[in-house]
Amino acid sequence: MAHRQFDLVTLGTGAALPARGRHPSAQLLIIHGEHYLIDCGEGTQERLREAGVGFNRIKHVFISHLHGDHYLGLMGLISSMHLMGRAQPLHVHGPAELKPIIDLQLRASQTYLRYHLQFHALLPESGTVAWSDSRARITVLALRHRIPCTGFVFEETEAPRHLRKEKVHVIPEHARAAVKSGADLPMPDGSIVPNSELTVAPAPVRRYAYCSDTAYAPELLPHIRGVDLLYHEATFTEQLAKRAKETMHSTAQEAALLAREAGVRRLLLGHFSSRYKSSDLLLAEAQAVFPHTEASEDGRTYSIPELTIVQN
Amino acid sequence: MAHRQFDLVTLGTGAALPARGRHPSAQLLIIHGEHYLIDCGEGTQERLREAGVGFNRIKHVFISHLHGDHYLGLMGLISSMHLMGRAQPLHVHGPAELKPIIDLQLRASQTYLRYHLQFHALLPESGTVAWSDSRARITVLALRHRIPCTGFVFEETEAPRHLRKEKVHVIPEHARAAVKSGADLPMPDGSIVPNSELTVAPAPVRRYAYCSDTAYAPELLPHIRGVDLLYHEATFTEQLAKRAKETMHSTAQEAALLAREAGVRRLLLGHFSSRYKSSDLLLAEAQAVFPHTEASEDGRTYSIPELTIVQN
Repeated sequence: MAHRQFDLVTLGTGAALPARGRHPSAQLLIIHGEHYLIDCGEGTQERLREAGVGFNRIKHVFISHLHGDHYLGLMGLISSMHLMGRAQPLHVHGPAELKPIIDLQLRASQTYLRYHLQFHALLPESGTVAWSDSRARITVLALRHRIPCTGFVFEETEAPRHLRKEKVHVIPEHARAAVKSGADLPMPDGSIVPNSELTVAPAPVRRYAYCSDTAYAPELLPHIRGVDLLYHEATFTEQLAKRAKETMHSTAQEAALLAREAGVRRLLLGHFSSRYKSSDLLLAEAQAVFPHTEASEDGRTYSIPELTIVQN
Repeated sequence: MAHRQFDLVTLGTGAALPARGRHPSAQLLIIHGEHYLIDCGEGTQERLREAGVGFNRIKHVFISHLHGDHYLGLMGLISSMHLMGRAQPLHVHGPAELKPIIDLQLRASQTYLRYHLQFHALLPESGTVAWSDSRARITVLALRHRIPCTGFVFEETEAPRHLRKEKVHVIPEHARAAVKSGADLPMPDGSIVPNSELTVAPAPVRRYAYCSDTAYAPELLPHIRGVDLLYHEATFTEQLAKRAKETMHSTAQEAALLAREAGVRRLLLGHFSSRYKSSDLLLAEAQAVFPHTEASEDGRTYSIPELTIVQN
C-alpha cells in the first residue's frame, strides 16, 4: 500500500503582532502529496523557503479572513510565483473582498500574471464545500469573529478497500478494481461472492479542522466531531477572558472545551498573543480540560498517521 | 556642539525575489534623530525589530513605486502601529495609486486607525519638494522604470554658524542666536562688528540620494551632483546588460558611471538580483569605474560624518 501522507506544517503560529519567533498565521497541509496553504500572513514566502517547500507545489490557498496577519503575505507570494515563471493555475479561496484587493495591486504594478489565478469566493456557511478533488474535500466553518471569518475542514478521500490476502487468487485481474471499490464478484458458475468475503474496509478517512480566529463557537460541534486534529486559536489565558470576549478570540481553556465536546483526537493550540513570553500557561490551562493538547511552534510538522488495517 | 546624526540603515538590499539573506527594499534614514523610512518591502517590520527601532520613531514613509518588493510591508507596518496604540500622525509619501490600496485594505479589515494617516501623493518630477521640516528637506527624483518610480534626495538643514572662540566674550548672551544665524553685531559705541569676524561657517550640509529602481538616467546628474552618499540599484552585471535594459534596471557599471559623472563622495550598491550568490562581481565591476563604492548588506549602518570645522 502506498504511503498516504497527511501532514500539517505550522509556518506561523503568532497573533496579530509577530514576536518571539512566532510569525503571523500560515499553515501548509499536505494530503497525499497535494499542498494546501491555509492563511498567508506577511513573510509566508520566507517561511516556505525555510521549510524547503517549492512554491510550485502549492495549488490552493485558503484565506480565512481579511485581518492583515492572515493574508498580507499573499500578494508577495503571487508575485514571486509570477517572477519564477509559474505556468500552472493557482486557486485562491477567500472572502469575496479579497479579489478586488489582489486586482488593484496587480494593476498598480502593471503585472500581467503568466499563470491563471482562479479566485473562489468563500460562502461563510458551515458545511459548504469549498473544493473537492481526488485527494481531499474541503468544507467551510463559519467562525465567530469581528469580521466575516471562515475555518476549514480538510477530509481526505477514502482509500480503496483492501483485498483479503487469502482471497486474492480467486479474483481475476480485470475484476480487482471493481472489487476494491466495493463490488461483489460474479463467478463463472453464476454464483456471486459478496464483497465482504473478499475485502476489508480501508483505514478510516482522516480529517483536519482549522479554527482561527474565533470566539468559543459550540455551533461548530457537528462539523468538527471526531476530527483527527483540531487547530484552534488560543489567543489568551483565562485571566484575559474578558478581553477574549471583546475581541472575539478564544482562551486556551475554551479551545480545550470545544475539543473535548467534539471528541477530537488531538488539539493543537496557536495564534498566541505576543504578550505571552512562552506558551506554557496557555498549554497548561488547555491540558487541564483536554489532555491531548499541544502548543504549535513555527516550522514544526504534525503528522496524522494512517491507521494500519490488521487483516484477520 | 551637539552631535548631528546622519545615518543610513539598509534594512533590505535584495531585488524582487528575496534570497540569500537579502530582503526586499527598505531603508531607514536618521537625520538629527528624525527617522525616515524609505521603501517598505514585505517583512520590513521584522527588519525594524531586528534593528531595535521602535515603530513610533518613524514619522515618514517614502514609497518609490508600486512593485511589490518596495511596498508590500507597508500595510503590516500600518496595522502594527495601530495595534500598538500609536497616537501621532504617520505621513506616507508615495504614488497616488497607493492611497486606494491602503484604504481598500483598511476597509476590508474594518480597521479604524487610532492615529491620523496623512497621505501625500508624490509628483514624479525631479526637484519637486516632497517634504520639508526643521531637520531636512526631501526632493523627488524622476527615475526611469517600467512604472512611475521616484527616487529621493534627503538634505539636512544647515547648522547655525559657529562662534569664534576668541570672540565669544565680546558677544552679549542675548545677541548670540542672531549672530549664529549670520547677523552683524552692533556695539555700545555705535560701531558694527561684521559677522565674518565673529563666526565661521558651519559644516556643509550633507545629502543622501536614493535611486532604486531605474535604468541609467543621466538626466539625474544636476540633482545628485556631489551628494555625500548615493544609493543606486545594481540589479545586474555587465553580462546581463541587455536584460537590464529590457527590465529598466541598471548594471553595477552603470551605477558607478553615474556616481563618477555626478562626483558623489560614496556609492552604495544594492537591489542585487537573487541570481548572484555574492555581490563580489557586481562590486568589482563598479569599483573599476568608481573606487569609492560599497555593496550594501541587510542590517548595516552607513554613517555620513559631519565635517569638523577647524577654527583658525
